[in-house]
Amino acid sequence: MHGQCAGNRRTAMSNVRTVKGVGWDVSAIGNAVWSGAKLADVLELVGIPNLTSVTRSGGKHVEFVSIDKCKEENGGPYKASIPLSQATNPEADVLLAYEMNGEPLNRDHGYPLRVVVPGVIGARSVKWLDTINILAEECQGFFMQKDYKMFPPSVNWDNINWKSRRPLMDFPVQCVICSLEDVNVMKPGKAKVSGYAVSGGGRGIERVDISVDGGKNWVEASRYQKTGIPYIADHMSSDKWAWVFFEVIIDIPHSTQIVAKAVDTAANVQPESVETIWNLRGVLNTSWHRVQVRVGHSNM
Amino acid sequence: MHGQCAGNRRTAMSNVRTVKGVGWDVSAIGNAVWSGAKLADVLELVGIPNLTSVTRSGGKHVEFVSIDKCKEENGGPYKASIPLSQATNPEADVLLAYEMNGEPLNRDHGYPLRVVVPGVIGARSVKWLDTINILAEECQGFFMQKDYKMFPPSVNWDNINWKSRRPLMDFPVQCVICSLEDVNVMKPGKAKVSGYAVSGGGRGIERVDISVDGGKNWVEASRYQKTGIPYIADHMSSDKWAWVFFEVIIDIPHSTQIVAKAVDTAANVQPESVETIWNLRGVLNTSWHRVQVRVGHSNM
Repeated sequence: MHGQCAGNRRTAMSNVRTVKGVGWDVSAIGNAVWSGAKLADVLELVGIPNLTSVTRSGGKHVEFVSIDKCKEENGGPYKASIPLSQATNPEADVLLAYEMNGEPLNRDHGYPLRVVVPGVIGARSVKWLDTINILAEECQGFFMQKDYKMFPPSVNWDNINWKSRRPLMDFPVQCVICSLEDVNVMKPGKAKVSGYAVSGGGRGIERVDISVDGGKNWVEASRYQKTGIPYIADHMSSDKWAWVFFEVIIDIPHSTQIVAKAVDTAANVQPESVETIWNLRGVLNTSWHRVQVRVGHSNM
Repeated sequence: MHGQCAGNRRTAMSNVRTVKGVGWDVSAIGNAVWSGAKLADVLELVGIPNLTSVTRSGGKHVEFVSIDKCKEENGGPYKASIPLSQATNPEADVLLAYEMNGEPLNRDHGYPLRVVVPGVIGARSVKWLDTINILAEECQGFFMQKDYKMFPPSVNWDNINWKSRRPLMDFPVQCVICSLEDVNVMKPGKAKVSGYAVSGGGRGIERVDISVDGGKNWVEASRYQKTGIPYIADHMSSDKWAWVFFEVIIDIPHSTQIVAKAVDTAANVQPESVETIWNLRGVLNTSWHRVQVRVGHSNM
């Protein structure tokens, strides 16, 4: 399954107007095989059955507290929560993971135990897990309540009202061209346009469209996944939590803008322009991915 | 919960290029209180537990067969299927409904028994239910395999390959302005811009943005739901399967294009232009809803 930072592609958003956050290009994402205990099973062992929305004592949220201390919590621990209904749903596949790609977690990835919440922004997959709490209310931690929310373009640091928005959870559909660097110089002729596509909430990828004329005409790319991987689901939905790769060989006769956009299995599409989804925190830049290529001769 | 035809807003799509299908404006949608037996409970009674993806005999899909005969099935019955994992998931809330708004179904709505699949295009909510089958493969009916799929704009009736696409299920995020008719003539000044917003797959509405300058600047509309209705979930997610209304009073000084777009709780957005999602069957027009208003004096 993949994990993606809410700030993936933030740098491109900051080109519109300044945003706050680490300047990520297109690589704040990864895909790995995780092993561990299913949170739904662990909760069942302590008396909370599968598919519970509210416990008898009124618990509705599962909070994950890290041993990692941070300045945003005034020296307290990093923390986050997810709804209990998600935590107790076996098909949501929330893991308490102790292995990554068949090996024990290393320190950077959260040794000895971390949470993996598939399909959700990376910030909820708490590393170095210390405590799990069942709460009546959402976690009140900084990264739930004062960060990782998506505001409209009209909101700035003077008029922001954090309470007006829900914490970000599911990641919307995303795709990125990785085979061509921005302002690439290449020879005229056929070139490979390839990259990754992914969606949140367990939704797979229905289609990836590529344009070599800035978005006027489109061709569909082929899609594939790594073989020999134990995906959650078979055939049509083996992309339930995992990314898919796309590839198309296409003629690029002159300098142009190459564009990629994906559609997920719930028919969600990516927004055309980054301007309409600009937000001050620079999160969820899922706008059509655009790469400028300069076509010329090699001795240019 | 709401039900929406995949062809809602098809007429606006056919303005780009001809599409096949009934010419719907913005009203191929409804919202009602449904009562009946949960399909997950019924399947449990016949030995298929909750959250089953595959039965022991290899069943993966639940097919609904109507008593309604149709020419597309060469005189056979209308039918459709959903994945078994959805049918056996109590939180997917699939109903075998015998009441609508507290009264027995009338004939038009599927008396005596119909399926209601929330968050999914209307075509899967089979009326006048005759038989339920558990199948290894998806239903092979016309409306699953040769209709209600979304193709890219490049596909036409000569190069279409029906097998290349999955049947449409979840509806993506949608919103529509209902308070202003297209090419409305109004006096300069404050006007109410209101309508409905809805998303599929159980996703609620995070935000509705309104622009009175064709999409350059946006204000957020307020949202509300009917009171006294027994919604599935409480407060923040009472829009799990139901539509929400939006409303904003806004100054419209001169003739302009008014635009509405919604964001759902998984941060999915609507596509900006209908051209990029045009498809030959005219389904899933969820592009930004645009209404032209002509501002003048009443004696014009």
